Amino acid sequence: MRNRGLKKNSSKPCQNVVLKTGLLAERAQIVRKKVIPYQWAALNNQIPSAEPSHAINNFRIAAGERDGDFQGMVFQDSDVAKWLEAVAYMLASHPDEEWEAKADEVIDLVARAQQADGYLNTYYTLVEPDMRWTNLRENHELYCAGHFIEAAVAYYEATGKDQLLQVVCKLVDHIGSIFGPEPDKKKGYPGHEEIELALIKLYRVTGDQKHLDLAKYFVEERGRQPHYFAQEAKARGDDVWRHWGKWEYPYSQSHLPIREQTTAEGHSVRAMYLYAALADLVLETNDEELRRVCEILWENTVNQRMYITGGIGSQEYGEGFTVDYDLPNDTVYAETCAAIGLVFWAHRMLQIDPQGRYGDVLERALYNGVLSGMSLSGDKFFYVNPLQVWPEVARKRYDHRHVETTRQEWFGCACCPPNLARLLASIDRYIYTQNEHSLYVHLFADSELTTEIKHVPITIRQETHYPWQGKVRFRVKASSEVKFNLRVRIPAWCKNPQVEVNGQILESMDLSQGYLVMARPWAHGDEIVVTLPMPIERVRANPRVRENIGKVALQRGPIVYCLEEVDHSPNLPAIHLADHAQLAIAVDEELQMPVLIGSALRWDDSGEELYTTSKFALKSVRLKAVPYFAWNNRELGEMLVWINSGGGIPFEGSRRRIRRNYEVVKENNNYGTLERIV
Amino acid sequence: MRNRGLKKNSSKPCQNVVLKTGLLAERAQIVRKKVIPYQWAALNNQIPSAEPSHAINNFRIAAGERDGDFQGMVFQDSDVAKWLEAVAYMLASHPDEEWEAKADEVIDLVARAQQADGYLNTYYTLVEPDMRWTNLRENHELYCAGHFIEAAVAYYEATGKDQLLQVVCKLVDHIGSIFGPEPDKKKGYPGHEEIELALIKLYRVTGDQKHLDLAKYFVEERGRQPHYFAQEAKARGDDVWRHWGKWEYPYSQSHLPIREQTTAEGHSVRAMYLYAALADLVLETNDEELRRVCEILWENTVNQRMYITGGIGSQEYGEGFTVDYDLPNDTVYAETCAAIGLVFWAHRMLQIDPQGRYGDVLERALYNGVLSGMSLSGDKFFYVNPLQVWPEVARKRYDHRHVETTRQEWFGCACCPPNLARLLASIDRYIYTQNEHSLYVHLFADSELTTEIKHVPITIRQETHYPWQGKVRFRVKASSEVKFNLRVRIPAWCKNPQVEVNGQILESMDLSQGYLVMARPWAHGDEIVVTLPMPIERVRANPRVRENIGKVALQRGPIVYCLEEVDHSPNLPAIHLADHAQLAIAVDEELQMPVLIGSALRWDDSGEELYTTSKFALKSVRLKAVPYFAWNNRELGEMLVWINSGGGIPFEGSRRRIRRNYEVVKENNNYGTLERIV
Repeated sequence: MRNRGLKKNSSKPCQNVVLKTGLLAERAQIVRKKVIPYQWAALNNQIPSAEPSHAINNFRIAAGERDGDFQGMVFQDSDVAKWLEAVAYMLASHPDEEWEAKADEVIDLVARAQQADGYLNTYYTLVEPDMRWTNLRENHELYCAGHFIEAAVAYYEATGKDQLLQVVCKLVDHIGSIFGPEPDKKKGYPGHEEIELALIKLYRVTGDQKHLDLAKYFVEERGRQPHYFAQEAKARGDDVWRHWGKWEYPYSQSHLPIREQTTAEGHSVRAMYLYAALADLVLETNDEELRRVCEILWENTVNQRMYITGGIGSQEYGEGFTVDYDLPNDTVYAETCAAIGLVFWAHRMLQIDPQGRYGDVLERALYNGVLSGMSLSGDKFFYVNPLQVWPEVARKRYDHRHVETTRQEWFGCACCPPNLARLLASIDRYIYTQNEHSLYVHLFADSELTTEIKHVPITIRQETHYPWQGKVRFRVKASSEVKFNLRVRIPAWCKNPQVEVNGQILESMDLSQGYLVMARPWAHGDEIVVTLPMPIERVRANPRVRENIGKVALQRGPIVYCLEEVDHSPNLPAIHLADHAQLAIAVDEELQMPVLIGSALRWDDSGEELYTTSKFALKSVRLKAVPYFAWNNRELGEMLVWINSGGGIPFEGSRRRIRRNYEVVKENNNYGTLERIV
Repeated sequence: MRNRGLKKNSSKPCQNVVLKTGLLAERAQIVRKKVIPYQWAALNNQIPSAEPSHAINNFRIAAGERDGDFQGMVFQDSDVAKWLEAVAYMLASHPDEEWEAKADEVIDLVARAQQADGYLNTYYTLVEPDMRWTNLRENHELYCAGHFIEAAVAYYEATGKDQLLQVVCKLVDHIGSIFGPEPDKKKGYPGHEEIELALIKLYRVTGDQKHLDLAKYFVEERGRQPHYFAQEAKARGDDVWRHWGKWEYPYSQSHLPIREQTTAEGHSVRAMYLYAALADLVLETNDEELRRVCEILWENTVNQRMYITGGIGSQEYGEGFTVDYDLPNDTVYAETCAAIGLVFWAHRMLQIDPQGRYGDVLERALYNGVLSGMSLSGDKFFYVNPLQVWPEVARKRYDHRHVETTRQEWFGCACCPPNLARLLASIDRYIYTQNEHSLYVHLFADSELTTEIKHVPITIRQETHYPWQGKVRFRVKASSEVKFNLRVRIPAWCKNPQVEVNGQILESMDLSQGYLVMARPWAHGDEIVVTLPMPIERVRANPRVRENIGKVALQRGPIVYCLEEVDHSPNLPAIHLADHAQLAIAVDEELQMPVLIGSALRWDDSGEELYTTSKFALKSVRLKAVPYFAWNNRELGEMLVWINSGGGIPFEGSRRRIRRNYEVVKENNNYGTLERIV
């Protein structure tokens, strides 16, 4: 690890982790087996039923090897880069000659499309060669460069091959010749952040200070006056407000210099990429002021502007944040990429200072708002992740036009699927971080870590059915005894964790910042069992979230649940979950995962009157809540996360009543000993 | 009354009614004293702070008396027509030489702007003289003609002057030479309905069958195939879908021939004007099939697609209807004109067949969704009438951009203020209808009716503090005894009406279709006292209205109440009204009208956590609900109609607790003996 100065708690991700079984392993495998091949086909226009990407073709044309016109979005190149990055992560954990050969070919093609001066962007090369670097606000040149840098670093680390690294170093040299603090250079920065965090990754590989400096420059220059986006528009002879409307500068987080920003604003993916870069800068520079800015933005994001799913972005217009506590469930944006960006940021916050609250958000976003973006089968995707869907209204209401009621094969703006692929293909790297004294466990997943602590090679086998069961067993394999702090995140949702070390229950637990600290010499054969009881929880939103007053969301462990029409009848909001109604967990045959079952009440909506002074009747109905991420995998229909609840409506959905509704058997299965619905 | 065939229940409005005191009288007076003069100034661009109208100027230019260009909307002429119509109603009840002279001048100007062939439309005359009648779908020529016809009829009836009547007869002859069922005529009909109902008004004055036939033609031709709007677009060389998008044919109710329509679709004002014309046709033709269509559309509108305020139109896009039970409170459209249109339609349904349910809707729309469109002072207007406002969000969210959080002085598209003026200036005509055997009382207002029944002149003095008090006294003045059925609407909200005739309580009431029927000879000095007890009611929406589940709206008599931030603290949805909390009515000093007061609970939203498994605390707070129509007359802030409620939360806002919160004194005042907040 490059020296990060004095920051005593900082730690770096452990990269040598093999996922074994369980939800994350399955999702990562789906990415390897289906998503990466599917996206390869998509990039090559080989999916007849999906919108054609043209991305590979654009590079062929730019390399002078094919005739034709550029097609696609101005940032179409980035889909190729994100795919390469995902392939790199796949090759790191699951070497595969065939895919490595394909990636090598693509990298060679990218190299051939690079211009002599280092410039790389097929849109400008093919469409507006004389207009390079004239519209940073809208046209994504630096954004695409950032994705190629990330891909190059990942591919280099995975394969040792540096062709793409050389391409991006040349590209970065070119960029550095155009932009920077020196008087003769343009004072530009990207409209869509991305290159900042990429340059820091590059710096960590190359050790070249100029890469860090350029990242720092882009972050710090943003939002300064006179405003660069106004200047470049004027230079183009363009009206600065054209295509701009209400978005204005907050849309691109350029309304203020970063050190003066206090609220999460604008396009939520852009914001996440900026804030992640900010965290990286803190890691690299120990800048206390930037750390405080990072912390303030974090608090605003997760405590005032985040959905329970870890989704962010409350409106389609500007794809971004609105105001504190404005979290509409149906017109929501919550782009998959934004939840992914939040995971990136949280992961970096954990590296700066491992606090459970960062891990809690990472886990919330990952298991809910991120995983929901991809179908269980891995071939369909959500761009927008609503928390409440009424398909008839989504089709008819213009203010719902961005809400797809079923996952799509591909998108004209295909940012989310490749972003999902690169995150899930590298999710093994999010489980542990370590520093000199400590090994941190941030996520729970059946897996094996291989690392070295104080020069002692050590293997940690983590055995768990998480996130479906809260028992996690760690087995230490080491050639010799080594003293270090094993720090295990205790999620905030867990009220009474239990820990056994080598069969002995730990009577007094040392909990610090959301981590259980076990400081002792660890030796081969040591076994730690952490049990995180996972009762079914009713979660309430702060009443400042006006939409959710009187409602509860169901959560068990890190998984947020939702209701689907297929398990009920239409009109899910008519379901009322009494405060004391018991719920049980059981494995659903069709979804092949644990769901929540119980009895609820339902307002009788069969009456003809639209308004009445009469009270409506309540009747008892079966309730089944499925993991939010797994919704819309059976059939089209309504979906609801926040369930009407509360009050002391005199009803108890007893265990006996659940049994009357659902027949279940107790058995050993993949999830331990959950009941199964038969 | 023109013979309307065999329809036995039909009745016609009594036009000779003088409003005395009370809410409607005050609103009508405001229209006469402030709105009509204000709008006159607006039409003449004399309000510096408001968007200039240019409407009068356009006529001057079209008459060749001034240089300049047409300015304003393509339907700018209609604002002049609606103003003239309002003036006509004013002159009918309150003759005024000065305003009559102004109106005469305007009429003369309009006559001078009319083309030799009868054509009248300043936009086409000045801007596209060769393109007349080529874009009925979008360009409102027939709509403007309709408004001039309505104005001409009203002005003729009020003053006996027929200059404008002659203008419109010539215009209609011209229109009839262009459009109609004959093979040589265009098969067009208006994109925005209005001329249909106007032509029937004209027919009733002229007795000229061709006016009725043309109305009938426009109504029946609409929606037939091949579609006229596609044909005219093609003839213009225009793409039929340009500017059209999702609205398609339902936007203008032209998706199907009228006899095949079963749901209220599209632009809600257009729909109301069409359905009102449909009702008029039923009145004139006794067409049973059309009557059934009318009834089906009515049921769909009021039982599936109407807000509790009588507002209609659930979305800004297309300004129209969406799907059954989709009634969002914040992104709502509920244009003032649409509620006015619903009053027009209801008034006609009452004339076909007096059923209380029509009167109930008329009253609901009038006292809530219509009156809310105008400030108490009469100089500011709402175009959109939301049922829930959070100003911060209305400003920041693009899907709320149509929601003004405070009434505006005027609008670029100024349809609503003049529409309010013409309705309120003629509201006296909505109180009674009569036919040979019966006098129907549809609305309650302190007023005096002068009419003739069976050739006996009769005066009915109605004394009441309605809508604030439910006691209504009718005093009969007649030169001789006359036998007829006095039919008094008993609103559906009234569960236990009481009636006294000449001091004798009526032990058994003959209630038929929502009307109390008193069939007997009536003589001078007879006195009927109808008491409609007005408890404060909690109204619930059918649970198919997903937004309002678990909520109540407060209503007393016909008045829907709402909460305003000025009387509470921010975050009105955090207020929880327990089922058994008592509420009291008292006169508010500032608003000078009865408001509802009581104790409610409020969720403690002071916590920092966004999501928690803890329950939030409830604390007791004062509650004050003000009439919905009177909201936003004090200061900018949140507003809420549907209050979180229900459950058996163990709390009773007792009478004693109300007294602790609000000090009130009992006294005689304008509203009878209501308590007054001191």
